[in-house]
Amino acid sequence: MTISSVAFIGLGAMGWRMAAHLPKAFADVRVWNRTFSKAQQHAAEFGTRAVDIKEAVQADIIFSCLPTSSEVETLIAEHLPKAGSIWVDCTSGEPTSAQYLNVHLQARDVAFLDAPVSGQTIGAEKGTLTVMVGGDAEALQRARPAIEPFAGLIQHVGDSGSGFAVKAVNNMLLAVNLWAAAEGFSALKAHGVDVQGALACINASSGKSNATETVLPQRVFNRSFPNTFALNLLAKDAGIALDLVQRAKLPAPVLALTQSLIRAASDTSANDSDFSAAVKMLERWTNIELS
Amino acid sequence: MTISSVAFIGLGAMGWRMAAHLPKAFADVRVWNRTFSKAQQHAAEFGTRAVDIKEAVQADIIFSCLPTSSEVETLIAEHLPKAGSIWVDCTSGEPTSAQYLNVHLQARDVAFLDAPVSGQTIGAEKGTLTVMVGGDAEALQRARPAIEPFAGLIQHVGDSGSGFAVKAVNNMLLAVNLWAAAEGFSALKAHGVDVQGALACINASSGKSNATETVLPQRVFNRSFPNTFALNLLAKDAGIALDLVQRAKLPAPVLALTQSLIRAASDTSANDSDFSAAVKMLERWTNIELS
Amino acid sequence: MTISSVAFIGLGAMGWRMAAHLPKAFADVRVWNRTFSKAQQHAAEFGTRAVDIKEAVQADIIFSCLPTSSEVETLIAEHLPKAGSIWVDCTSGEPTSAQYLNVHLQARDVAFLDAPVSGQTIGAEKGTLTVMVGGDAEALQRARPAIEPFAGLIQHVGDSGSGFAVKAVNNMLLAVNLWAAAEGFSALKAHGVDVQGALACINASSGKSNATETVLPQRVFNRSFPNTFALNLLAKDAGIALDLVQRAKLPAPVLALTQSLIRAASDTSANDSDFSAAVKMLERWTNIELS
Amino acid sequence: MTISSVAFIGLGAMGWRMAAHLPKAFADVRVWNRTFSKAQQHAAEFGTRAVDIKEAVQADIIFSCLPTSSEVETLIAEHLPKAGSIWVDCTSGEPTSAQYLNVHLQARDVAFLDAPVSGQTIGAEKGTLTVMVGGDAEALQRARPAIEPFAGLIQHVGDSGSGFAVKAVNNMLLAVNLWAAAEGFSALKAHGVDVQGALACINASSGKSNATETVLPQRVFNRSFPNTFALNLLAKDAGIALDLVQRAKLPAPVLALTQSLIRAASDTSANDSDFSAAVKMLERWTNIELS
Repeated sequence: MTISSVAFIGLGAMGWRMAAHLPKAFADVRVWNRTFSKAQQHAAEFGTRAVDIKEAVQADIIFSCLPTSSEVETLIAEHLPKAGSIWVDCTSGEPTSAQYLNVHLQARDVAFLDAPVSGQTIGAEKGTLTVMVGGDAEALQRARPAIEPFAGLIQHVGDSGSGFAVKAVNNMLLAVNLWAAAEGFSALKAHGVDVQGALACINASSGKSNATETVLPQRVFNRSFPNTFALNLLAKDAGIALDLVQRAKLPAPVLALTQSLIRAASDTSANDSDFSAAVKMLERWTNIELS
Repeated sequence: MTISSVAFIGLGAMGWRMAAHLPKAFADVRVWNRTFSKAQQHAAEFGTRAVDIKEAVQADIIFSCLPTSSEVETLIAEHLPKAGSIWVDCTSGEPTSAQYLNVHLQARDVAFLDAPVSGQTIGAEKGTLTVMVGGDAEALQRARPAIEPFAGLIQHVGDSGSGFAVKAVNNMLLAVNLWAAAEGFSALKAHGVDVQGALACINASSGKSNATETVLPQRVFNRSFPNTFALNLLAKDAGIALDLVQRAKLPAPVLALTQSLIRAASDTSANDSDFSAAVKMLERWTNIELS
Repeated sequence: MTISSVAFIGLGAMGWRMAAHLPKAFADVRVWNRTFSKAQQHAAEFGTRAVDIKEAVQADIIFSCLPTSSEVETLIAEHLPKAGSIWVDCTSGEPTSAQYLNVHLQARDVAFLDAPVSGQTIGAEKGTLTVMVGGDAEALQRARPAIEPFAGLIQHVGDSGSGFAVKAVNNMLLAVNLWAAAEGFSALKAHGVDVQGALACINASSGKSNATETVLPQRVFNRSFPNTFALNLLAKDAGIALDLVQRAKLPAPVLALTQSLIRAASDTSANDSDFSAAVKMLERWTNIELS
Repeated sequence: MTISSVAFIGLGAMGWRMAAHLPKAFADVRVWNRTFSKAQQHAAEFGTRAVDIKEAVQADIIFSCLPTSSEVETLIAEHLPKAGSIWVDCTSGEPTSAQYLNVHLQARDVAFLDAPVSGQTIGAEKGTLTVMVGGDAEALQRARPAIEPFAGLIQHVGDSGSGFAVKAVNNMLLAVNLWAAAEGFSALKAHGVDVQGALACINASSGKSNATETVLPQRVFNRSFPNTFALNLLAKDAGIALDLVQRAKLPAPVLALTQSLIRAASDTSANDSDFSAAVKMLERWTNIELS
């Protein structure tokens, strides 16, 4: 298959930057966004083409990057893509939804790949995102040229839903690593330990994680909490991870506990809180500011 | 102060390698070990000098690297170092013990530094250990030339006990990050996800940690579980971390839970288990092998 | 409506005893069991009538008491009850299944009540069970005379699924109270406290629960662990409770943690273990026998 | 020994009522309180004798009922009781403190019994408290006539510290049972279940506890939260229970988690909150009022 046209649906903080890479590889790049002016702005800035949703879903490859699987399901129910196309869903979605959409679209000769990304806005900007893909391997092979412009790593991880599953577990681990680090640093601070020195030690030691290497210094200790990935989306992802655990009837006490804490932190935080602000719930408990 | 003599007490897996670097910087390097033949062997191999414990504690700088603070306290109670010397304890010890020894030795004009290390045997071999130091900053300044031969980073983190505190929290975070990752990968495997692919994605994403980058691939997924750091010592360190939490009367649910799990894993494992074998308890629960 | 006939499907430890009360109130009591000889034995012993499943589902009131909702769904899919009848499901089932069956049967003019019971075999024997009922209140009013023979308390708790929800939460609380008590008594025994004396104190104090008043003394401390309620069914119920939590997107850290522990305890125990044997997992961890 | 004189130190909500029973059995009943007017008031009301602390500690049996072990230690350090006397400490104290005081006073021929009580102010009023006693059994035998006036059950539970240990575990279980019940009822309410009906069912079933039988209906669901037992004291007791666990190096995940939650609830609540107000932290998380 030669890809003649690609479409990108959902120009949020991630989608906006991801779609911007597509004109490098394709002449016909269609973009659509609920607030349509945003699509027009994207077209003006990056040489994409702002189109009606009906035209968007007629592309050979359709990307979607929306808040939750629910929006994707609604969209597909209303606007069926053309036979032979591939829908690449970059939402951080639900594995069961991917399985449903996969079966549903297969019957219409459309392939559905769950292909969530990680790397945040900076990775989207640079085109170095990690793309974890579930679904038909051969469909991924065909769609790969369209994914490559914004990807650093494209990894097939299994059948339909697997990509969403890996993304949910990744974000769950981020939540655990961050929350646990916050608890640990609170204890250190309570005992008068130099927090910056401690961070330097841990980041040169076995306890380090992305949470201690980037989240604590760049978002928490400097009190910036920039909203680049919303806490309520992290809470949603943690919920998806726990659904995986529940459906497999597995014990997973640490994930289960942390999911509850992140849920509580999200539900007691301002709507526009960055995920890193989860630690503020702990700060309210301890009266110790992580700085 | 010019350092004329240094001594190293405790030639276990770590101490053996750490002491081996000292002859590069000092002419008079004394070593002592409970099993004395090991000290003699060290002397033969590295040009150190196997001495009686009484002579060891007469050095200008005395290092100790023993299983727990209890052994250090016993040793110091029986063999007081000379006035003006500095005792640098590289054990992963208890903060309260450091505070006690610091006060106790100060009265005899001996400085006590809690200076646990991280970097494992490979870091000890290469002389690139991270040394996190609690106690008098000026004493550290004086002792620094003796620490440098085996250190990559020497970080003063606060008053007496702070070094042990940071080490305990580091190891606690390692435990949390590892256990949570094991839970997450169990869930992925239960859903048929490609575990190696998932690991590649997570290690290129925000959920990564030292546990996912080195422990899972190098110890767990290859089923090697090499015993380089014993599970019962990790359980001890997690207990020290929780003692910090308790003494500060802080809530720390994730650390508290994980400490219980690591304690259970250690108490139901073979004595010579590597820390990474903690995940085998989860495997017994789930009947899913992490490989 | 006058009830002319009642049927009881599922003559396990509970159903056998519950059905035995029905002939006191009704002339036409039909019983059915997969192993049909058991139905015949029941008929011989209690004056019920062993019938074909087709005849059972033609009764005015049909009771079912099966291991899980899955068996009930299968049965109803294959054998639709007659219009105007009421299906009273005493299984400890899933709320979502009750909601589905309620809608499904309503369309055929059959009412479905989720009506799980508590009180164990002794309560079934004596006819003093607590029956927690979800579904149409008017249908319960009509079915009440058929339930009364084996009930001590018949409580309407809300719409379809509510009965199952209350039962799941009840059993979850039993699990928490039991497991926590086991942890507490392990700590007391480790410190040399007289466990029987401690139990007497707690059962006269604010920490008491059904777990300390009956489960510990009658099942655990005497090491009898009589299998009257299987551990894997408790694990299933705890899972249902956590599903409730998850669907409502609520934080519930203590329930979530305990559900994981009970799941692990069940999956590492012999199939025929009593629920009280969950504490044996803790005993394996601590090497302290609760006696 | 004949008991000629008894003294009661600490006339708080519990002590006030406990001391009021003593004149029924003894002619010489001395009372002391830091705010001395309270002692004078007690004397006027119950026929006790308000005395100087020096005279109080000269009684044959000295009771103390203070907020924490720390106050008891200070008092005893300053005012040593006479040889041959028995100190009966009804504080909810720390086992290690009891062990220390036991040894310390033994050397002065004074027996120390840790004898915390349960039954709340109503039990103190009626003289039906449960008294859980650690320490020398023979000393308890001698002191028993002085304890009986306010006791329903006097139970010797082991060596010094055992009484405090049992009390701490009892209160820890209260905390677990209450918090878990709050989580469970939140889930039920979120699903529209009738909470009062559910409570009736659970209190007739295996999930019941003192928390569901008295705390939820009498303090939470009616939104009264009467401050008869302070939340910060429950948090202290839970901390003591976890110290027991830690010292014995036991895993106790559910106690550890709940202790953290109660600590957080206490530290984020008004100072004069009743223990039952712990559930308000959960309510803030879920936005579901337990009523």
